[in-house]
Amino acid sequence: MAEAVAEAMGGARRVVVVGIGMGPQHVTVEAAVAIGSVDVVLAFAKGPDDPLLEVRRAVCTTYGVPLVVLEDPPRARHDDVDYDAAVDAWHAARAEAWEAALAGHPGDLGLLVWGDPGLYDSTLRLLDRLQERRPLAVEVVPGISSLSLLAARHRLVLHDVGAPLHVTTARRLPEALAEGQRNVVVVLNRRLDALADPALADWSIWWGANLGAPGEQLVAGRVGDVLADLEVAREAARTVDGWVLDLHLLRAPAPDAA
Amino acid sequence: MAEAVAEAMGGARRVVVVGIGMGPQHVTVEAAVAIGSVDVVLAFAKGPDDPLLEVRRAVCTTYGVPLVVLEDPPRARHDDVDYDAAVDAWHAARAEAWEAALAGHPGDLGLLVWGDPGLYDSTLRLLDRLQERRPLAVEVVPGISSLSLLAARHRLVLHDVGAPLHVTTARRLPEALAEGQRNVVVVLNRRLDALADPALADWSIWWGANLGAPGEQLVAGRVGDVLADLEVAREAARTVDGWVLDLHLLRAPAPDAA
Repeated sequence: MAEAVAEAMGGARRVVVVGIGMGPQHVTVEAAVAIGSVDVVLAFAKGPDDPLLEVRRAVCTTYGVPLVVLEDPPRARHDDVDYDAAVDAWHAARAEAWEAALAGHPGDLGLLVWGDPGLYDSTLRLLDRLQERRPLAVEVVPGISSLSLLAARHRLVLHDVGAPLHVTTARRLPEALAEGQRNVVVVLNRRLDALADPALADWSIWWGANLGAPGEQLVAGRVGDVLADLEVAREAARTVDGWVLDLHLLRAPAPDAA
Repeated sequence: MAEAVAEAMGGARRVVVVGIGMGPQHVTVEAAVAIGSVDVVLAFAKGPDDPLLEVRRAVCTTYGVPLVVLEDPPRARHDDVDYDAAVDAWHAARAEAWEAALAGHPGDLGLLVWGDPGLYDSTLRLLDRLQERRPLAVEVVPGISSLSLLAARHRLVLHDVGAPLHVTTARRLPEALAEGQRNVVVVLNRRLDALADPALADWSIWWGANLGAPGEQLVAGRVGDVLADLEVAREAARTVDGWVLDLHLLRAPAPDAA
């Protein structure tokens, strides 16, 4: 059925998913070409003050492409809600909203992803869901990830020579520590509680908030020494930008230093 | 002593380390500004046919900055050499060569890193070593990583919803599997042997070689089904480009599918 409709409309819709890093300064040559090739960019706003909406707006203005802003369906955020089920319901609601938006905006569509579409972003999963309803020709252009920007700001390689890098969410940090990870990038942080764990006091941390935004904050040091600084920096980022997004690298002390 | 010399020379030398992704198409707006701000770009060539040298040359030509090519000290590659010691000796030899190069080329220096300087690249470690001899003012501009490009080519998010991403080298893949990792990006691959492990036959693989180069190859599927295809694709990449660099994402079957 979906295919019959699409065939009547002339085949699969072209959707270009473009990673824009933390803003216009991170747009690559191929991202600029991709953005210039679409008829309209769709953006889902998380409320009227969505900070990442302004970044998308700046990119669209730079490359002269119209931006259509759609309301993002709300997502359950309470800790007592089953995480996977909440994400699943949210993705389903977004897929519905996106399908309606696609129908209302003919031509090639652009979607601008903060950071890189391949890391901790749901756009591609959403398009997979949407593909079950109508055929899409999806292209993806990679972007600067917040991990790379964190590393650059601290002039740091994210791992020891030849050693692994483990990336996880703040929710799952305890699991990573329990399995013995000693070099962990923690994304989607929402609180600093986990860092107060005495087992982490001697670890090193390289931390950043609102990277690339006016309120950007950086802190590095021994976890036990900088905990208070992190709280202050987090509030400073929120005061300047009205929001705060932070991530960090945690590294265990070298075995011979323990 | 080093500081006294630098002071006589007018303070710390400015060195800008710029991630250029897989080539000119991945240069960001801020990377272009950074490249345009230096007096000369230094590049260490791994032999006269270093493929990544041509990528750097293309970028320098695009932005009108002179490129000086230096011979890279050789590195022991035999498996029976202690890995850490070999890397360490190579880095020391490179630091010597770089120090001489800095002395011979006044002004602000640019170093162009394939991919992102924060992931599996030794440039920043080398500059740390060099800083022990003379003061440097190092700036870092992030780049598109090969991980992001692999994900983009396969239109893939590199991890399951809210789940960890483990990145490691081919040498250390057995350790990652032994500790129970079920979603692993493997970089610095030099052979396909590790994938012949029967325990991996039912895993999914998303593989890429020479990403962004003319000989680019992509393969995806069940490991046990695509092993022969990978060998063919690896040779096809080498035939076109004269070299081969590959990486891949491995993902265990979903628990309920096992």
